[in-house]
Amino acid sequence: MPVTITLYDLCGTDRSLRFSPHCWRVQMALAHKGLDYETVPTAFTEIAAIEDGRSKTVPVLNDNGVIVSESFDIAVYLDDTYPDLPALFGHDGVVAAARLILNWANATIHPILGRMMIKDIHDVLAPADQAYFRQSREKRFGKTLEEAQTGLDANAEALSDALMPARVTLGHHDWLGGGGPLFTDYILFGSLIWLVTVAGRLPLPEDDAVAVWFERCLDLHDGLARKTKRAA
Amino acid sequence: MPVTITLYDLCGTDRSLRFSPHCWRVQMALAHKGLDYETVPTAFTEIAAIEDGRSKTVPVLNDNGVIVSESFDIAVYLDDTYPDLPALFGHDGVVAAARLILNWANATIHPILGRMMIKDIHDVLAPADQAYFRQSREKRFGKTLEEAQTGLDANAEALSDALMPARVTLGHHDWLGGGGPLFTDYILFGSLIWLVTVAGRLPLPEDDAVAVWFERCLDLHDGLARKTKRAA
Repeated sequence: MPVTITLYDLCGTDRSLRFSPHCWRVQMALAHKGLDYETVPTAFTEIAAIEDGRSKTVPVLNDNGVIVSESFDIAVYLDDTYPDLPALFGHDGVVAAARLILNWANATIHPILGRMMIKDIHDVLAPADQAYFRQSREKRFGKTLEEAQTGLDANAEALSDALMPARVTLGHHDWLGGGGPLFTDYILFGSLIWLVTVAGRLPLPEDDAVAVWFERCLDLHDGLARKTKRAA
Repeated sequence: MPVTITLYDLCGTDRSLRFSPHCWRVQMALAHKGLDYETVPTAFTEIAAIEDGRSKTVPVLNDNGVIVSESFDIAVYLDDTYPDLPALFGHDGVVAAARLILNWANATIHPILGRMMIKDIHDVLAPADQAYFRQSREKRFGKTLEEAQTGLDANAEALSDALMPARVTLGHHDWLGGGGPLFTDYILFGSLIWLVTVAGRLPLPEDDAVAVWFERCLDLHDGLARKTKRAA
């Protein structure tokens, strides 16, 4: 059967470099469902041209003509459309809780990751993207990218503290999904693989429950994320 | 059948005043399961004397001789022990996600609630408890209770911001548990009913999705929490 699922996936100036946390959440979700898919590398400034400009952001999924954007909506779509394949949620209560966890991660973890590597992200982008990225992010932060980025080590403690709720959970369960990985895992994993692809490493002790779990996530789906290109 | 479940429940100098977020989580859980129980009002300085001093904290549950402490462990115990009664989790993935949400609420929401009402909490306690409470909390905060409490309105924006992940979720689902209430709801509800019993109100706009959901929680289980005594 031909591959009918296309994922528009954010890329760097090296189009094989894929780092977007939101796109990674979807790649892991597609692999979890066991669905064949192809990715289309997409620069920020190319998003307006894909699928008639229907979405201002990637990921965008085209499943045989059905277009879905936003990682969470894509995950819900995949479970609804392919109920016989392994569940990403498995229970209505997981959907709701995962939505809270998504917003926790984006609001709490992502600003810290920004302080760690916002200039590094800029540096891996294609020139046209760099101009867009600098303007939009400097407006958001109210400072230059060079000022905003204080680095991995300067923010390692803040990251560690912010990860506490996940760390406690992973002290009791192998996965944020409980006995096996669910979309809850891919949410936080997406955040952290973003850091690792761009900045090269997770600034956590090796025996931190989050670091141990992260390695477990890297092994998932034939090492999908372990094999991906890293900038640093 | 005689009531065989006892919940040791934190109380004020008015022993009918019950405000502990951790104990409220368990009261709602017991009501959710439809279990008969009686509460034993317990001051901070009385905890060491209950059930042979087995726990340093309340809630403590005695279910026909089985002693369990910690609200989360009690909820898991109730689902394990009474699987035929309405589920508090319903799925392994909800247990894990709820554990993350518990630690998010305790770490993110509770410090803000402390700044809102730490002195007010002190004031509702019995004299012996007041001495213990002042000493332990002033050590934790590094300042006097009078300095630490800056009030409801001064911290309303911080609370509103911190509740964002729950607000977004409740824009999509009636409950943090999805289609119906689960222990996930009782976690955050426990935090907020603590504020309302001690400080008198939730400083959120009436049409805030969290405020609307909070009213919905007050209606649960024959208005259990709506009927409870309030200090202010």
